[in-house]
Amino acid sequence: MSSSEIDNLAISTIRLLSVDQVAKANSGHPGAPLGLAPVSHFLWKQMNFNSKNPKWLNRDRFILSNGHSVALLYSLLHLFGYPLTLDDLSNFRQLGSKTPGHPESETPGIDVTTGPLGQGIANAVGLAIAQQYVAATFNEENFTISDNYTYAFLGDGCLMEGVSSEAMSLAGHLKLSKLIAIYDDNHISIDGSTDVAFTEDVTKRLESYGWNVIWVKDGNNDFSAIQSAIEEAKSSIDKPTLIKLTTKIGFGSLNEGTAGVHGSPLKPDDIKQLKTKFGFDPTKTFQVPQEVYGFYKNTTLKKGELANENWDKLVDDYQEAYPEKGQLLKRLISEQLPENWKSFLPTYKPGDKSLASRKLSEIVLQNIHQVLPELIGGSADLTGSNLTRWTNAVDFQPPSTGLGDYSGRYIRYGVREHAMGAIMNGIAAYGYNLKPYGGTFLNFVSYAAGALRLSALSGHPVIWVATHDSIGLGEDGPTHQPIETLAHFRAIPNLMVWRPADGNETSAAYLKAISTNKTPSVIALTRQNIPQLEGSSIEKALKGGYTLVKTEYPDIILVSTGSEVSLCVEAAKHLKEEKNINANVVSLPDFYSFDEQSDEYKLSVFPNGVPILSVEVLSTVGWSKYSHAQFGIDRFGASGPADELYEYFGFTIEGVSEKATKVVDYYKGKEIISPLNKPF
Amino acid sequence: MSSSEIDNLAISTIRLLSVDQVAKANSGHPGAPLGLAPVSHFLWKQMNFNSKNPKWLNRDRFILSNGHSVALLYSLLHLFGYPLTLDDLSNFRQLGSKTPGHPESETPGIDVTTGPLGQGIANAVGLAIAQQYVAATFNEENFTISDNYTYAFLGDGCLMEGVSSEAMSLAGHLKLSKLIAIYDDNHISIDGSTDVAFTEDVTKRLESYGWNVIWVKDGNNDFSAIQSAIEEAKSSIDKPTLIKLTTKIGFGSLNEGTAGVHGSPLKPDDIKQLKTKFGFDPTKTFQVPQEVYGFYKNTTLKKGELANENWDKLVDDYQEAYPEKGQLLKRLISEQLPENWKSFLPTYKPGDKSLASRKLSEIVLQNIHQVLPELIGGSADLTGSNLTRWTNAVDFQPPSTGLGDYSGRYIRYGVREHAMGAIMNGIAAYGYNLKPYGGTFLNFVSYAAGALRLSALSGHPVIWVATHDSIGLGEDGPTHQPIETLAHFRAIPNLMVWRPADGNETSAAYLKAISTNKTPSVIALTRQNIPQLEGSSIEKALKGGYTLVKTEYPDIILVSTGSEVSLCVEAAKHLKEEKNINANVVSLPDFYSFDEQSDEYKLSVFPNGVPILSVEVLSTVGWSKYSHAQFGIDRFGASGPADELYEYFGFTIEGVSEKATKVVDYYKGKEIISPLNKPF
Repeated sequence: MSSSEIDNLAISTIRLLSVDQVAKANSGHPGAPLGLAPVSHFLWKQMNFNSKNPKWLNRDRFILSNGHSVALLYSLLHLFGYPLTLDDLSNFRQLGSKTPGHPESETPGIDVTTGPLGQGIANAVGLAIAQQYVAATFNEENFTISDNYTYAFLGDGCLMEGVSSEAMSLAGHLKLSKLIAIYDDNHISIDGSTDVAFTEDVTKRLESYGWNVIWVKDGNNDFSAIQSAIEEAKSSIDKPTLIKLTTKIGFGSLNEGTAGVHGSPLKPDDIKQLKTKFGFDPTKTFQVPQEVYGFYKNTTLKKGELANENWDKLVDDYQEAYPEKGQLLKRLISEQLPENWKSFLPTYKPGDKSLASRKLSEIVLQNIHQVLPELIGGSADLTGSNLTRWTNAVDFQPPSTGLGDYSGRYIRYGVREHAMGAIMNGIAAYGYNLKPYGGTFLNFVSYAAGALRLSALSGHPVIWVATHDSIGLGEDGPTHQPIETLAHFRAIPNLMVWRPADGNETSAAYLKAISTNKTPSVIALTRQNIPQLEGSSIEKALKGGYTLVKTEYPDIILVSTGSEVSLCVEAAKHLKEEKNINANVVSLPDFYSFDEQSDEYKLSVFPNGVPILSVEVLSTVGWSKYSHAQFGIDRFGASGPADELYEYFGFTIEGVSEKATKVVDYYKGKEIISPLNKPF
Repeated sequence: MSSSEIDNLAISTIRLLSVDQVAKANSGHPGAPLGLAPVSHFLWKQMNFNSKNPKWLNRDRFILSNGHSVALLYSLLHLFGYPLTLDDLSNFRQLGSKTPGHPESETPGIDVTTGPLGQGIANAVGLAIAQQYVAATFNEENFTISDNYTYAFLGDGCLMEGVSSEAMSLAGHLKLSKLIAIYDDNHISIDGSTDVAFTEDVTKRLESYGWNVIWVKDGNNDFSAIQSAIEEAKSSIDKPTLIKLTTKIGFGSLNEGTAGVHGSPLKPDDIKQLKTKFGFDPTKTFQVPQEVYGFYKNTTLKKGELANENWDKLVDDYQEAYPEKGQLLKRLISEQLPENWKSFLPTYKPGDKSLASRKLSEIVLQNIHQVLPELIGGSADLTGSNLTRWTNAVDFQPPSTGLGDYSGRYIRYGVREHAMGAIMNGIAAYGYNLKPYGGTFLNFVSYAAGALRLSALSGHPVIWVATHDSIGLGEDGPTHQPIETLAHFRAIPNLMVWRPADGNETSAAYLKAISTNKTPSVIALTRQNIPQLEGSSIEKALKGGYTLVKTEYPDIILVSTGSEVSLCVEAAKHLKEEKNINANVVSLPDFYSFDEQSDEYKLSVFPNGVPILSVEVLSTVGWSKYSHAQFGIDRFGASGPADELYEYFGFTIEGVSEKATKVVDYYKGKEIISPLNKPF
């Protein structure tokens, strides 16, 4: 079979496998796979990966940012030898299958979970950053530890989303030359022609960001142009590349070039004519000519397997040539943190200086960065406010700028919270146990809600350093003061939401956030000073919640977080002195970690028989889970000095005591069941 | 005083008033006001507004997208005759003042609340859309009802945020020629030089969106270039314009051109030399030369007052010339909905066809759009899935495209949820009681969290048509299935979050969402069919919650929303038949509206003595407020057919009955206090 014959056969196979999946499920998106099959074939056949070892660290990465085209990806994974059978393909979009409706990183060979538009391309920027970091840190003459490319497919929808603008602008600034994005310029979205909403000049826009743009005018038929575009893109030395690939959505279908093929299965007649047109048996489904398996096996797969073997040997040899860096490389590959790293976390005792928890966070970073080269910091502007940069940090910058280099570990994200979130997901997905953290005001983590939810869904252990966490930020006012924010984040599954009350709790938050390899964290930190508490410790805080002030026969429990814990401690003293009311104080810095504890432990903190009042200067939503009454702020904040705001909203010793007294009075003589005791 | 002398004096006055505010508050951002004073003076002195009537509908709009520069805006408002005194200015950033830390629309003369970066410029796009709509609808020869410009200042930060990319790309597509943005190209953000993160070619980027770009190279000193740029921008006929104004941040300060002047007050010495340099008394604060008051009064203010008078007369004359449209115009100006509009809302009775609530929503829109020209629809792509477009709707498009015209009421937002939210805020802020709604999947409203929160904070009554509201969307899987989303939105103050259970409740949601002039709404709608319920009505649903199934001596109350209400009705029957358990069923379509009811009513729905189980296929967070036990989904969803997912997660008649039985058993013999009864 000639080279062009096998190319054509492979491309038709990819097309029809994709169409069959969608038809079988009677759900999904056949249009983009039909248009993207040629470029997929030519891209993947030259890509460097080992499907027998899908996590090989120097593989080329592939991101399907237009994740709804996932049938295409499953076809490719199957044909290129990943553990995805034709049965799996025929279970497309079925419950419990390995082939869900959008790419999920649990399926071997899928680098990141995509579907929400714009995220994938931003993840790709993160993967490319991580690659440059690893390369700059470890590559030596004759020892190319890292040189993989990051490829991403994206569609019109991805380009319309703001997160892609943020990420692609930053990628241009960072001159990520090994990032190659392939834009499916098919002129169709669900609403029909892109003429209705998307008429910008994409080439010019990307060039304005500092990208190369290569236009393949006929992405359906001009195979040689596709191949040269890929080669040209790979040879770029100082810019990322966008290949603008003009295709016909639903190529070959009776409805090609229309929105009708975007998100609905093709009709049986259409599939029949399509199979006939491509020389396949119109009565059969899920057909793969042996030649296609054979071709990929003997070319791409064989080459990839060998490359993986050589790389393994290279890493071994590296140990001898560069013993110190070799040891670090091995450690990162094994995803083990250094044994002693926790000893670098600061501890505090009562009487130590009051500090803002953003400052306490800075001290943590200052201490641990030296032993954790896997820590990659950054901030969405606001560095001086978030205190996210350790002294003398090197910025991650193209060396040509003179502002840093690629071995730098501090990323200047610019005012781009959403991209920061998605890029951190990409960095975490790269491997080597990289731990990205990013700073902004807590309120503006919400700009990145789309990325944060994907961190949690995918289990990327990224860390948000979220400062200015309440009305305590003062004068900036209600546009900057979070109210609903913690309730929102606490409702996201698999997300730790820390609000430490002092230095020990701040250290605990970082300990847990860095130790996990499956759960992201938001660490909410104050702008204003808070005291070091009597009774706190890293160990206790790791439980997510603990009794800070314990009385023998408590009349009430005050449960609180962050800056309000010390207020509750003072209120407890006041209650004792003024009203002879015994109050326990519980600090609950992270609901997620507390929920993981044994029932016995949790009930020891929140026992039956004692009424519980929660105290937090944000929305009360979510607090009924641990309390009988809630003192919070269920309105927007206000602009003014922080201490005046606390007073205005009643968060004073007297204010808390008054609420507590009402709770004690109300529950007197009533049967009090712990809110943790539930029928199921 | 010569023209150039008064210009200089006015500019210095603006600069020093701004600096004094920040110094007095010892908090705020002096840098941008110093750089932007010249353009502010020249822009405002030619602007068309009447500070005696700040809400005059044909005024030019001014948006400070870089809202942290608000001291500048307060200086302008004061000097241009708005009710903001020097005392107000000296109370900058103080609790209860009219001069909070970022612009809030409660202050007369402030068109929209800004501060969170990127929002203001997107609001401006909405204001410009609304202007074009009003003009296209009402303008006639010799009757120019609407021709105002929309001006926006924005900084590097705004341009980095994705929401501005989305909005500005759409503005270019829509050819909003009366939109003029002035970009403070000062090369400084909080992190220092923009060289660290923002090196894109802004001119080229904006041109790629279809904007004019005019560069003023010396925005500090070249007054004639500033004035010609404004004139040139105003003469554009088919493109929005960006004036790239290169300025020195903190102009005149000892630290001009550095991040040091961005967000911290100037030092006393610096202020002293600044005042001396500008010919002011260095020992005094808040100085306004009478010539400056006089100049603005005799030029801009006089002109504006007259223009307002003429416009009022024009509107009166319009009544005679165009009686029908005149009546509509008067009605919109008076912000009254047509008296009979509610009668267009469909009602349903049990036995009527089961329909998806997204379809029920479509029927509402189909019925009411005819009587509500104030309704401006749209969708972030997905029109065919959200069902947001009534039959034969005209698209809001530049007439030259042949795809619609500016009197069209359906906006093709493209895949740009965040911009859609911010643009809707701008449309609502324009006046004329315009009611924007926008469609997307519920899960992707989260992309617009930043804009949604500002809708609620500012009280813009925008409506999100949020379909595919749960695992009920099926095969698209966990990346598309909301879990935390309703908890998040319910925690936002001043936001209605509707999840209607049938057709009557869907009508109620729209009734309330359209009637309010101060509260935005999210209406969560199903992809899958739901039955018309026995016992529902618009009237009952307006209360936010009501007892749908009532038994004389209930053993349990099942409270639920949306697609799970009918499931609870079936479970209640099952419980009676199989276990002789009497269950009430409460439908709670909107927490916000329910919370507004009297305590008596609320306790009649959730009385003491009966255990309550909530049933909703999303996060349980927030439900403890109305229930003793919660049945929900506190993990991410899965990809598969909807009915299989409901079964998998236990949301079946048997599943709900089993949970209910556990609740009844658990609370047997215990004292049961309604969760609504609280100590305070």
